Amino acid sequence: MTTTAITHIGSLVTNDPALGEGPLGLLQDAAVVIEDDKIAWVGPAAKAPAADEAYDAAGRAVIPGFVDSHSHLVFAGDRTAEFNARMSGRAYSAGGIRTTVAATRAASDAELEANLVRHLDEARRQGTTTFETKSGYGLTTIDEARALRIAAAHTEEVTYLGAHIVSPDYAEDPAGYVELVTGEMLAACAPYARWVDVFCEKGAFDGDQARAILTAGAAAGLIPRVHANQLSYGPGVRLAVELEAASADHCTHLTDADVDALAQAAGTTVATLLPGAEFSTRAQWPDARRLIDAGATVALSTDCNPGSSYTSSMPFCIALAVRDMRMTPDEALWAATAGGARALRRTDIGAVTPGARADLALLDAPSHVHLAYRPGVPLVSGVWQRGARVR
Amino acid sequence: MTTTAITHIGSLVTNDPALGEGPLGLLQDAAVVIEDDKIAWVGPAAKAPAADEAYDAAGRAVIPGFVDSHSHLVFAGDRTAEFNARMSGRAYSAGGIRTTVAATRAASDAELEANLVRHLDEARRQGTTTFETKSGYGLTTIDEARALRIAAAHTEEVTYLGAHIVSPDYAEDPAGYVELVTGEMLAACAPYARWVDVFCEKGAFDGDQARAILTAGAAAGLIPRVHANQLSYGPGVRLAVELEAASADHCTHLTDADVDALAQAAGTTVATLLPGAEFSTRAQWPDARRLIDAGATVALSTDCNPGSSYTSSMPFCIALAVRDMRMTPDEALWAATAGGARALRRTDIGAVTPGARADLALLDAPSHVHLAYRPGVPLVSGVWQRGARVR
Ligand SMILES: [Zn+2]
Ligand SMILES: [Zn+2]
Repeated sequence: MTTTAITHIGSLVTNDPALGEGPLGLLQDAAVVIEDDKIAWVGPAAKAPAADEAYDAAGRAVIPGFVDSHSHLVFAGDRTAEFNARMSGRAYSAGGIRTTVAATRAASDAELEANLVRHLDEARRQGTTTFETKSGYGLTTIDEARALRIAAAHTEEVTYLGAHIVSPDYAEDPAGYVELVTGEMLAACAPYARWVDVFCEKGAFDGDQARAILTAGAAAGLIPRVHANQLSYGPGVRLAVELEAASADHCTHLTDADVDALAQAAGTTVATLLPGAEFSTRAQWPDARRLIDAGATVALSTDCNPGSSYTSSMPFCIALAVRDMRMTPDEALWAATAGGARALRRTDIGAVTPGARADLALLDAPSHVHLAYRPGVPLVSGVWQRGARVR
Repeated sequence: MTTTAITHIGSLVTNDPALGEGPLGLLQDAAVVIEDDKIAWVGPAAKAPAADEAYDAAGRAVIPGFVDSHSHLVFAGDRTAEFNARMSGRAYSAGGIRTTVAATRAASDAELEANLVRHLDEARRQGTTTFETKSGYGLTTIDEARALRIAAAHTEEVTYLGAHIVSPDYAEDPAGYVELVTGEMLAACAPYARWVDVFCEKGAFDGDQARAILTAGAAAGLIPRVHANQLSYGPGVRLAVELEAASADHCTHLTDADVDALAQAAGTTVATLLPGAEFSTRAQWPDARRLIDAGATVALSTDCNPGSSYTSSMPFCIALAVRDMRMTPDEALWAATAGGARALRRTDIGAVTPGARADLALLDAPSHVHLAYRPGVPLVSGVWQRGARVR
């Protein structure tokens, strides 16, 4: 047993209203004691119990480590040229996601794993201590199972997304692809995954197909989450609520009925907003204010992927959420930590409270508000993951 | 004499069209040799001459160090509460800039210098190798001269901005303040500064006042630059062009005549765009596309200050310029390096070419396009300033 005290924390976000002020459970001049991989004690610095080691935060802010509940990090290749052409207004015969599928299929296991680890390390340096990641660039039984096996070696939050798009190999037979995704591919993938996901969108999978895929996944022991209402209005959000999915992700195009459904399901289905995608595709912003005011539970995540949102930065997503989605700095911080934990149905992360996993980020700033006040500045200067200092 | 070779540069931005492809003078698989504080050689990696030391860039991109030609870093205090209230839609009896003036006047020299150094170090870690910074939070002869003296110890690009706002002490006598700024205060400040600047805007200084201030500064040997057309249409841009200012900064509200004037003056007066300010105040974006298409010279800078743009991140400004101001990734990179050099009338920085100052940034990415493609991700992993590795 080793204990470490982090002392002289100028401002501590606990996300536990029992410990401090407001929904963030804010404490000023606080200390945290870590015992092995867990939080053992939280309170005023002056009352901190003795510990084996001490770290002096020197008045800086400490927050729970970010919970990035939506990313696509098992891939190979790069789409710089496509991005450059899109942003420069030049025509480009882009293969889009198919470019990534081809590169991913062609990559070795070692290449995929090295790329995943590089991105996870990059995110960790920016304060992310829990990562969800998905398959979806293999689209064959072997390639999807391989992606999940590789992901499962690095995170417990692994999502089967065989239904990312209809595989190009099944362009003439989408029903055949749904059969594969709900049959042989699911059987091969389920052992490695906790979640099943589907891209419910025009040109991908419609409501009936999505229901079939999520229902089959649930029957195989996976919990549903849904890429819903990103590019257009559609059935995704209501399907997510109906199936008690953990999360409806994107939520960019919502009817009043969609918002109502998410508000009613606030204890079950989180609305996970992914502003990096709207940033990098110049799309309209999800209306976080409307969702929060209606009573929905909102999470923020990166959607990190090489096509539409190649950021691993939760601080960047917070800055966008405040500027463009009208979340308050407090709401955005909560959504990027406790909100992500809810979207992953986790009670052991996303808060700095006794018994929780000791996942913490130290900011080179006096307050978590600086994550929005100082956009783009790499403020995360220390990270503890399961009690170990990793940055 | 010490020489250092940076080899295996996957993609090198030289900003010298004679050295490589296009306006960025791009070279693939390149090397750079530094001799003391200067660039000695640039070319294909295979032909690099021998050097005392070698650094292997391992296929990553190298760019000229960023030239941040507009910041306000001699200040004390923090306006987190004001920012938080503004972004949260709460009323707040903010003193605005006066809050910073009061805190700056109350601070010791050592406090001001420590704060400046902290922000310069932070910017340097993000790849900025040349910084301009201004006075403007003192607004008395003693406090303005003090700010410039402190700044001059850390950068040669120092700007006298006694005319930031009319000092609260002269609220009833703005003409008296202009007299001070053009008289006693100017005399005390000119020895420390290279530039004279004025905030030409409704509620600050009108066209006639701005002309008087800039003309007096020029007579004292300072070169004009102007805060122009930020919050509304006005005379600032045309005044900048008329007085052959090095830069018209902000350029958010431009008439066709303003754009024409900047295009005609492209060799003299740079349009310096500051998207961090529009980001943090939720204002409309400057129309970079219109300026570039008209033929104006455009620079990008942070405007780093605690009130309206508290970012020190040039990569963040590039990402915004591409997303929201319709600059191409190439144009944005040029504007943040060579454009800044032009705005400071410098020929020794902003390019990686023999004889130039050895100011370089190494990216954890294969191409400079990633600065926009990967928004918010701290990609700068190495920095050389005057030939010394500083990160
Ligand atoms: Zn996604
Ligand atoms: Zn300014």
